[in-house]
Amino acid sequence: MLRLMSADGHRLFQNDLLEATFGGGEANVAVSLANYGEDVAFVTALPQNEIGQAAINSMRSFGVDTSNILRLGDRVGIYFAEKGQSQRPSKVIYDRKLSSIATVDSHAFHWDEILDGAEWFHFTGITPALSDALKDSVRSACIAAKEKNICISCDLNYRKKLWSTQEAYRTMSELMQYVDVCIANEEDAEKVLGIKAHNSDVTNGVLSREGYQQVAKEIGQRYGCKAVAITLRTSISASDNNWAAMLYKDGNYYFSPSYHIHIWDRVGGGDSFGAGLIYGLYHQMPAQEVVDFATAASCLKHTIQGDFNRVSVEEVMLLMNGDGSGRVQR
Amino acid sequence: MLRLMSADGHRLFQNDLLEATFGGGEANVAVSLANYGEDVAFVTALPQNEIGQAAINSMRSFGVDTSNILRLGDRVGIYFAEKGQSQRPSKVIYDRKLSSIATVDSHAFHWDEILDGAEWFHFTGITPALSDALKDSVRSACIAAKEKNICISCDLNYRKKLWSTQEAYRTMSELMQYVDVCIANEEDAEKVLGIKAHNSDVTNGVLSREGYQQVAKEIGQRYGCKAVAITLRTSISASDNNWAAMLYKDGNYYFSPSYHIHIWDRVGGGDSFGAGLIYGLYHQMPAQEVVDFATAASCLKHTIQGDFNRVSVEEVMLLMNGDGSGRVQR
Amino acid sequence: MLRLMSADGHRLFQNDLLEATFGGGEANVAVSLANYGEDVAFVTALPQNEIGQAAINSMRSFGVDTSNILRLGDRVGIYFAEKGQSQRPSKVIYDRKLSSIATVDSHAFHWDEILDGAEWFHFTGITPALSDALKDSVRSACIAAKEKNICISCDLNYRKKLWSTQEAYRTMSELMQYVDVCIANEEDAEKVLGIKAHNSDVTNGVLSREGYQQVAKEIGQRYGCKAVAITLRTSISASDNNWAAMLYKDGNYYFSPSYHIHIWDRVGGGDSFGAGLIYGLYHQMPAQEVVDFATAASCLKHTIQGDFNRVSVEEVMLLMNGDGSGRVQR
Amino acid sequence: MLRLMSADGHRLFQNDLLEATFGGGEANVAVSLANYGEDVAFVTALPQNEIGQAAINSMRSFGVDTSNILRLGDRVGIYFAEKGQSQRPSKVIYDRKLSSIATVDSHAFHWDEILDGAEWFHFTGITPALSDALKDSVRSACIAAKEKNICISCDLNYRKKLWSTQEAYRTMSELMQYVDVCIANEEDAEKVLGIKAHNSDVTNGVLSREGYQQVAKEIGQRYGCKAVAITLRTSISASDNNWAAMLYKDGNYYFSPSYHIHIWDRVGGGDSFGAGLIYGLYHQMPAQEVVDFATAASCLKHTIQGDFNRVSVEEVMLLMNGDGSGRVQR
Amino acid sequence: MLRLMSADGHRLFQNDLLEATFGGGEANVAVSLANYGEDVAFVTALPQNEIGQAAINSMRSFGVDTSNILRLGDRVGIYFAEKGQSQRPSKVIYDRKLSSIATVDSHAFHWDEILDGAEWFHFTGITPALSDALKDSVRSACIAAKEKNICISCDLNYRKKLWSTQEAYRTMSELMQYVDVCIANEEDAEKVLGIKAHNSDVTNGVLSREGYQQVAKEIGQRYGCKAVAITLRTSISASDNNWAAMLYKDGNYYFSPSYHIHIWDRVGGGDSFGAGLIYGLYHQMPAQEVVDFATAASCLKHTIQGDFNRVSVEEVMLLMNGDGSGRVQR
Amino acid sequence: MLRLMSADGHRLFQNDLLEATFGGGEANVAVSLANYGEDVAFVTALPQNEIGQAAINSMRSFGVDTSNILRLGDRVGIYFAEKGQSQRPSKVIYDRKLSSIATVDSHAFHWDEILDGAEWFHFTGITPALSDALKDSVRSACIAAKEKNICISCDLNYRKKLWSTQEAYRTMSELMQYVDVCIANEEDAEKVLGIKAHNSDVTNGVLSREGYQQVAKEIGQRYGCKAVAITLRTSISASDNNWAAMLYKDGNYYFSPSYHIHIWDRVGGGDSFGAGLIYGLYHQMPAQEVVDFATAASCLKHTIQGDFNRVSVEEVMLLMNGDGSGRVQR
Repeated sequence: MLRLMSADGHRLFQNDLLEATFGGGEANVAVSLANYGEDVAFVTALPQNEIGQAAINSMRSFGVDTSNILRLGDRVGIYFAEKGQSQRPSKVIYDRKLSSIATVDSHAFHWDEILDGAEWFHFTGITPALSDALKDSVRSACIAAKEKNICISCDLNYRKKLWSTQEAYRTMSELMQYVDVCIANEEDAEKVLGIKAHNSDVTNGVLSREGYQQVAKEIGQRYGCKAVAITLRTSISASDNNWAAMLYKDGNYYFSPSYHIHIWDRVGGGDSFGAGLIYGLYHQMPAQEVVDFATAASCLKHTIQGDFNRVSVEEVMLLMNGDGSGRVQR
Repeated sequence: MLRLMSADGHRLFQNDLLEATFGGGEANVAVSLANYGEDVAFVTALPQNEIGQAAINSMRSFGVDTSNILRLGDRVGIYFAEKGQSQRPSKVIYDRKLSSIATVDSHAFHWDEILDGAEWFHFTGITPALSDALKDSVRSACIAAKEKNICISCDLNYRKKLWSTQEAYRTMSELMQYVDVCIANEEDAEKVLGIKAHNSDVTNGVLSREGYQQVAKEIGQRYGCKAVAITLRTSISASDNNWAAMLYKDGNYYFSPSYHIHIWDRVGGGDSFGAGLIYGLYHQMPAQEVVDFATAASCLKHTIQGDFNRVSVEEVMLLMNGDGSGRVQR
Repeated sequence: MLRLMSADGHRLFQNDLLEATFGGGEANVAVSLANYGEDVAFVTALPQNEIGQAAINSMRSFGVDTSNILRLGDRVGIYFAEKGQSQRPSKVIYDRKLSSIATVDSHAFHWDEILDGAEWFHFTGITPALSDALKDSVRSACIAAKEKNICISCDLNYRKKLWSTQEAYRTMSELMQYVDVCIANEEDAEKVLGIKAHNSDVTNGVLSREGYQQVAKEIGQRYGCKAVAITLRTSISASDNNWAAMLYKDGNYYFSPSYHIHIWDRVGGGDSFGAGLIYGLYHQMPAQEVVDFATAASCLKHTIQGDFNRVSVEEVMLLMNGDGSGRVQR
Repeated sequence: MLRLMSADGHRLFQNDLLEATFGGGEANVAVSLANYGEDVAFVTALPQNEIGQAAINSMRSFGVDTSNILRLGDRVGIYFAEKGQSQRPSKVIYDRKLSSIATVDSHAFHWDEILDGAEWFHFTGITPALSDALKDSVRSACIAAKEKNICISCDLNYRKKLWSTQEAYRTMSELMQYVDVCIANEEDAEKVLGIKAHNSDVTNGVLSREGYQQVAKEIGQRYGCKAVAITLRTSISASDNNWAAMLYKDGNYYFSPSYHIHIWDRVGGGDSFGAGLIYGLYHQMPAQEVVDFATAASCLKHTIQGDFNRVSVEEVMLLMNGDGSGRVQR
Repeated sequence: MLRLMSADGHRLFQNDLLEATFGGGEANVAVSLANYGEDVAFVTALPQNEIGQAAINSMRSFGVDTSNILRLGDRVGIYFAEKGQSQRPSKVIYDRKLSSIATVDSHAFHWDEILDGAEWFHFTGITPALSDALKDSVRSACIAAKEKNICISCDLNYRKKLWSTQEAYRTMSELMQYVDVCIANEEDAEKVLGIKAHNSDVTNGVLSREGYQQVAKEIGQRYGCKAVAITLRTSISASDNNWAAMLYKDGNYYFSPSYHIHIWDRVGGGDSFGAGLIYGLYHQMPAQEVVDFATAASCLKHTIQGDFNRVSVEEVMLLMNGDGSGRVQR
Repeated sequence: MLRLMSADGHRLFQNDLLEATFGGGEANVAVSLANYGEDVAFVTALPQNEIGQAAINSMRSFGVDTSNILRLGDRVGIYFAEKGQSQRPSKVIYDRKLSSIATVDSHAFHWDEILDGAEWFHFTGITPALSDALKDSVRSACIAAKEKNICISCDLNYRKKLWSTQEAYRTMSELMQYVDVCIANEEDAEKVLGIKAHNSDVTNGVLSREGYQQVAKEIGQRYGCKAVAITLRTSISASDNNWAAMLYKDGNYYFSPSYHIHIWDRVGGGDSFGAGLIYGLYHQMPAQEVVDFATAASCLKHTIQGDFNRVSVEEVMLLMNGDGSGRVQR
């Protein structure tokens, strides 16, 4: 998607500048992994015009393989973003109807070819929410991946403006059967899968470790996931959040440390966690390291402008190994 | 429309800044006239969100009455713009499907009320091109205006991406019956009304005075217009244009002087001419002054960033009366 | 006033950019109320040049009625502003001598006409401090308002560079007789009216609830105000403030919750409180809601660049009803 | 003066950025000469605040001696500037009433000390136009300079908003008796000294060589100047000017070549000519070289943003010696 | 190289912003060809730090294959650039000593592997000028290319700050034996190969068609090139150039049309010509089309900021086929 | 050095803008002292090009005497900087090989003349680390200063990328014999002089008052310093630090208050402390005031963009005397 953010911390249209970058759930994960040195391909549809090309160029600059992107349709989906500050929340206004990806037909992507040679397939709950054709296409992708023994990860990523909880439940319940690694926050689990963390009230920042354990376990058991990760955000204000995560794997619960983050740009935080998790699991890090790496990675994302997590493995490792002091690196 | 232009003379997406302003055919005319001190109302539909509000605020800042604007629908139409330079043409990419105005129904505007007390009604050929409902609505507006004895002006403004010449002809031929003042360029007249200037080849910059006279006369006679104005642009390059106009009125032809313009921003040039023409006719200037005022006004527009012509009557008069020397005004 | 703020968090003139916007006590209140959907007119004097026009355009963009603004005099008052950070305080340098408003004569404004049909009249202590003519004019306005049964509110807003405490006392004591709703901070009450909060030391951040109650009560009783509101700021640093307020009405004291604000731009905070208070009182909210609305509104102002509080009633309500978590609004 | 120019080629207040730099007649000459490696001191009065300090810092950065600048008064004079383009003229709006320099008393500057050791004294007609005290002070400076045998140059620089032609004539006629080197354009000579170039019509761009010769000769003879220089501008548009000059010295006339300039920023063009002339005369270049150097210097100024001519002697020499081809200097 | 250009048309360090992009002879050619849809790899050495990575990302965004770039050494070469205007020439200040590429040893690149499967090898005279090791390495590349029957093109690109004409002659004379396609301007031919166009004086803009024919023929005959292209620039000023080219092929001379260009950014103009030439020859266009395509491509480059020619084949074709009118593309 | 910082809080090269300013250890101290009204000269070597000149202009703007700066060599050293945020540390990438100062020979500076009339000589440990010639030159400077009875201060400022601890120890141990006032942080003392604070672990933020006392005392005794100052930084994150200092003088220990700083730009913090210390000692403030002044000064530096501490004595005094509340200064 084309992300148009008001510049200079202004409210949208307070002055006449918009910062134009690109982003979106799966794209953010792809860029993160490319920054970690992985071979990643991003699959979507973009129009045959300068805006579609700019989206591709943006992904390519990080080394993401864009050769599977279809060039068709009329427009790139847009979202307008405004950074929050203190008690004023960040704001996102979607303008993505009729986007190329939302108008592809269900056979547009030849998953058998696309996934040839792949070792991991990642999708988010946003994609099937965009159209019925995409529901079908994601299902096809999952089936193709399963046949090829490709590990499948899914970030539930519930968006209330795209579909109802009922529709989300119906679709995602089915897709979850293919998913090996599930990523969720407490809201997703409840809204999409109907699994609620006990004693949790997000707005008030009351988060219960036990609740999360129970949610993760239930997801894991119900859908047969090998790993379930849940991010734990406590919003103190738009400027200050606590951020941690839990990984449920092989019957055990692994909690990351909690970071008190002074936020620069919070959008894409969840995606950067997903990418860190995939990186850790793919490289077979011990479970504790996996959740630590993913959490440190996404902690850093909150300090970076734009959807993309512009950090290296070394930078994540530095933080993960305990240096959050922010001393100058010379 | 929301106009997103690449900043700093860059190509689109060359850097990450877009200049976000508002504009569009009739809006540009409204702002011009408000800048001349006229009471103007702009009628359209805009969504009930921050982007729609910003469009309204932009118009209000010039004193345009926005109280008749409907707040409904999903999105503000967008166009991406890139300034040309020398042999590189300016580029405009439209993204206006599903805009609020394109999705209104044919009875959305209550023209009888809206036009109550008005003395002039202006529309462009872009509006009926957007939807069948708008074709109906514009017709209703014309009928209501005629009943109230309101002067009607129309800028043909053919846009090939919106409709075919056939569809344009069918619609505009009918609407032209209500039009008192017609504004066109040589391309519009040919594409919309099928009236071609003899011996004119726009791309090659060959423009014939006689051809224009013939076109204007034919429009006037065929549709019974009181006045027909034709703009005469010679594109030397994206940076340099010659610009003049002709007014056909009461059987006579009035040619403005021709300006050699070093262009800053060419979009909205035609609209600024239309506004100047309306101003002159409304204030019953002599015909030669009318075309001189309109041409000087639009000459100045080419030197101003954005769709809107940010000039006063005094500034237009200064140029119209012969001072194009550009000496510093202290 | 024209507000020229150093860009990018720089000290003044550290680089060569100034952010030029408009603002000032009463203007800020007017814009806030217009943003809440109220019909508001702003009355001042501005020169007949591009700068005066830009000030008007800025107000008009929010829908403020500017038709009563006089166009005369030589200049728009200017203030240079520099944002503070941590231990470095914000800085304001005034350059407003000879401004149009400071040079009007005492009969420039025809209050009887201007206030015709109005329901509320608001002024601040800054205006009578600018000239003797304005002292007279504000008095005339109060008298005219009283005759028309218009509610009068006044924000004391003491500015030590404009007048001495003695001169302020003399003028404001008289004007306060007309005032129905008084807005003050602890410093104003002491400096302007000679009423000191016991046990309060602003610089050290020691604020006493009892002291404020006593101050409000004394103002209310001495001048017969229907309502007295006092803002309670605790400056931890230029970046962090606690912000709350108290409303004294019908013999009772209503305290808002206290917000810990991470500040973006603090100038205009008091004015945004005044506007929120007027909104609440005008719409006859219960007293507790009034002070809660006003405090939440001004809390949000601290997160927004510029003098104006660019928020809607909905956004204030959201915060007032308890969601200060800053979670992204999608 | 503080110069506030609209950024990005916009009209004033079209967006919210102003480019804040410093400039003004004599300051511009001082900076030019400092850039040529001369020891120069600039004498003025500036307020004891951040704005006055910034003005000093700006001059100091070029190596101008600012130790004689008085720190007193209330404000720095301001001018708002807007760049012209094509047929739209540049615009300058002065806001310099009550500036520190305009409010000094006639004995504020101790010229005897200030001029101690100096070899050249330059002033413009703007300074005595600001106040009666400055008329006296400039006269005192001239007398002190004459006693010390210091060469005196004056740029007539008529500003119609500051004084009438009558007042200018009265004052400058007297001051001209001390002047060794007079700099003027055709308008100055006529407006200030009542000496009109025959057959010259500035707005129409008709310039007569003979007329200029006659004007220079008459100035030289009437006031006993050793050298009289007249700049010859032909404004084709705000973007394109022809620029040349003539020097009358020792009874001979020396014409520079004429440059066709594509203008970037025209303000300060005359001052840069004055500085080039002083440089040439002070270094006793042959008369033809003097006018060639001064004209080339000021030609380059038109290509540079801001009042100051940021060029070196080498750069002027390169152009003066005939390379105006603009080939890249690597 | 890292290109640091003063922003906003300012002189270097006039304000505190530098526009940081990447460029350089061969890189520019690579990006142009990638923009035309060709598979291109760029070979160089860059340090293992954020700056080297940014250079790679910049190339990757256009789809250039960067997998052969060595990551070693200490720094990225830098050049500071300042745009000229009218009589003020553009300025380039090199700071490229100790750059990674300048410090590689002669065996750093394994040309046999790198060129495997390639069809074209392009280099410029800048590379062997950087070090003796690079002289050796380029020779090795040419030998390897010849063995693989790869077409070799060379842009002479003489840089006087890098080597003397003697050293250039010695090196390039040898390398030219391998070259199939030679690109030069009149200065290169003379300075590098000692072949002077008769009757040509570049600074004065006197260019002789016959002289160019003779130079091209002599190059072709002396070194056995299949094609020799010479660009013909007439610098009217830094803002206005005439630009054309001649191709000598199979004993015939093909002249492109001449473009009068209003320049936006002239750096990289020659490289964009080279890329256009390679594109045309590689796709076996007729010789006249080859030179027309290359000239139109580089004409467009002059209108684009930065070293890279951000145009598509379609855009070049549009201009090449005669539409230089700059009319808006909607 | 030329400091190139990514703009807008971005990571380096995230967008195409770099903020170009100047700075560096001794330069920062010089500017601070000039801002306090002291006569300061800065001694270095800079190339004879626009970049060297810009460095000089930058220093001159603050009133620093630059007449002793040598103009020779090839380049200005560069450092790229990226601001940290929260858990993401600030990053500095040096590119200073071959800088003019690093390539001067050991007799380039004539210290006897340069120090003539001086009362204080300050250097940092960075300078001798750059080359052997500079080791010699600094020693010569110290000897010359000692002979002239000039007070010598040294900020140890260890940079691990410039030299090993062994080389630093060898050089600095000798130079320290001349030093009257030593400035260090806990890391410097250990790395350069081999003196370790007991019980201190910087990364973990554990700082022991006793440890610092012991370190300072040992430095003082070993090298005969009259005063030893140690800064005490606790990095909570890149955004939040605690900052304090201790002065050891005449056998006593003076601790400043500790500031909790919300950081804007941390680079140059140590230098601003050094300048404050020199100011206090030079003006013979009581020891407690000296350390309080220096700490308050450097606290403010952390709130200011760029290497230079742009504050006045009055501003430091205001904070030092207890007003860190950040209330607006009107």
